[in-house]
Amino acid sequence: MAGQHHYGLILAGGRGTRFWPRSRRRTPKQLLPFFGDRTLVQETVERLRPLIPPERLWILTNRDLQRAMRRQLPEIPPRQILAEPEPRNTAPAIGLAARIVYEQDPDAVLGVFPSDHHIARPGRYRRLVKAAFQGAEQGRLMVMGIEPRWPETGYGYIEFPEGTRPGRLGAVPVLRFREKPDLETAKEFLAAGRFYWNAGMFFWRASVILDALRLHLPRTAALLDSLPPFSSRRFAAALRESFPKAENISIDYAVLEKADNVAGVVAGDIGWNDLGSWNAVYELLARRPGDNVARGQLLALESEGNYVEAGKKLVALVGVRNLVVVDTGDALLVASRSEAQKVGRVVKLLEKQKRGDLL
Amino acid sequence: MAGQHHYGLILAGGRGTRFWPRSRRRTPKQLLPFFGDRTLVQETVERLRPLIPPERLWILTNRDLQRAMRRQLPEIPPRQILAEPEPRNTAPAIGLAARIVYEQDPDAVLGVFPSDHHIARPGRYRRLVKAAFQGAEQGRLMVMGIEPRWPETGYGYIEFPEGTRPGRLGAVPVLRFREKPDLETAKEFLAAGRFYWNAGMFFWRASVILDALRLHLPRTAALLDSLPPFSSRRFAAALRESFPKAENISIDYAVLEKADNVAGVVAGDIGWNDLGSWNAVYELLARRPGDNVARGQLLALESEGNYVEAGKKLVALVGVRNLVVVDTGDALLVASRSEAQKVGRVVKLLEKQKRGDLL
Repeated sequence: MAGQHHYGLILAGGRGTRFWPRSRRRTPKQLLPFFGDRTLVQETVERLRPLIPPERLWILTNRDLQRAMRRQLPEIPPRQILAEPEPRNTAPAIGLAARIVYEQDPDAVLGVFPSDHHIARPGRYRRLVKAAFQGAEQGRLMVMGIEPRWPETGYGYIEFPEGTRPGRLGAVPVLRFREKPDLETAKEFLAAGRFYWNAGMFFWRASVILDALRLHLPRTAALLDSLPPFSSRRFAAALRESFPKAENISIDYAVLEKADNVAGVVAGDIGWNDLGSWNAVYELLARRPGDNVARGQLLALESEGNYVEAGKKLVALVGVRNLVVVDTGDALLVASRSEAQKVGRVVKLLEKQKRGDLL
Repeated sequence: MAGQHHYGLILAGGRGTRFWPRSRRRTPKQLLPFFGDRTLVQETVERLRPLIPPERLWILTNRDLQRAMRRQLPEIPPRQILAEPEPRNTAPAIGLAARIVYEQDPDAVLGVFPSDHHIARPGRYRRLVKAAFQGAEQGRLMVMGIEPRWPETGYGYIEFPEGTRPGRLGAVPVLRFREKPDLETAKEFLAAGRFYWNAGMFFWRASVILDALRLHLPRTAALLDSLPPFSSRRFAAALRESFPKAENISIDYAVLEKADNVAGVVAGDIGWNDLGSWNAVYELLARRPGDNVARGQLLALESEGNYVEAGKKLVALVGVRNLVVVDTGDALLVASRSEAQKVGRVVKLLEKQKRGDLL
């Protein structure tokens, strides 16, 4: 099957609250530039361009972000930048995209990609994506496993058979999906050498995932099957009506953990980073441990390991270590780098306080 | 001698760079409010008012600040708010004020006060000031010793005789002035119980300090003696001409360490604080150790002991301890509270970089 049947779905409805105060409801993480001029979703599109041209890319986002997405991605046909009527999890979103793409091309093979990750080695990454598409063409549900670099407790893991080697391009059968482990289990996974991070990237024929949904998530599958054609005038209204009734469940739980034709490609060092917090941005930008990383003017006295961004404002640090300092004019975050994953809790508190101006 | 011969000189030419970015060349520490609405120099005037009415107060500042001082202190006759043509140390400044006050009232007794300290118990303080004025009336050079509360290495000390008790209101002869000690010496001072902090407050008859200057600092004294009357039109031009030739020396070195008629009053707990850094402001405002102190909106998560001011901006702290965070719109300081005394070095660096916009 030739590459012209390869389609991409970029999931771009997330909020990315851990990047507050830079990230806001209308400019979440995926719409922000962290490295250079391109935003993360623009990076994602560019990274895939040699494999999937924009005219075969679909973006699924939410209503708040649809307009900004269309502005940031002018090369993607506007009708392919869809908004979910209500946020659901990945299973309904992927089913919807598969349903639409299948209608246009029954041979479609769909790759599913997060919109807010960073990949330092896109060439290596694309070789893996190609291999995953090949596995998908053969009717498998393909996932991408990332070789773990530390015993991370914040990711799910994919268990592959004994002897699986990173960087192998062929499809490897998946033994099991493992939920976020505790630290001890994560260390065992790392030591065992056949547990890989689940990067949330999937590849399958549209027909195959639709059949799998019919089997494992029949209520949601029936809703999708009942939609009128995407090209019809009735589609938008019907979607608004039925999508909110879809089950709020991830594709991992709904399908992958149950299906028996799941396989994966296993990444070697592709420089994958899910940018889980400001700390990840620091670590990607610091040349050496202990460097200060600043966007803008920084004057650092006896200070090390800090990440600073404050627009045009001069920031002076005196005797401080391993902080994140982010100033946006209306709000200022000062966080310990090691606690940066808790920044999302600030957003929850602001929601409770109804501080819409800062959300 | 009645109180109507009591005059005050407030030395208000300092830069207070350790309070950057709040303090700037044109709004240094003494022109800023730290506690309530009044600025430190306004607090100083208010604190003295029951003893010295504004019409007998003189302010010595520099050219950059003269206008702001007159604005902040409208109750003081504008001609009594003088600017040094060039910054000199305390000896020429005090000599100049003594010269002018003596000319108007040969019986004048002059109290000399810093403009940028804080005193939590002004009633107790005024009783000491009264006692110091009394000692001065008798022809002594009077100083004020503050009972030390910790082995501070940043202050000079005054050595009093064995058995000196804090809170004594009579004049106690001074044995010696001791320069800023090292930590071990400071601890010995504290243990000995007769070494007091030199608060930079002095009381003397104008005639007595002028005679002392003639004896111990004759060149500067001659310059002052050669000035035409303050009331004459020629005074301003003559001051501009001669003041820069005065020696750049403190009254402590120039006179107090040499004179034999030096005595002091010794303060008990008057709540004196020279506000040496942002850390001092935190300690004065924190009710309990570990409290966060904020001017404005603070959202603190797992954070303790921080001082925050950022205008109307919301500041979120996550997992940080004992920081000073001061935002002024054009600049942001994040400092360790324990290193806050090094903030002055930021100002020196900005001077080197010719960042006049931030000075």
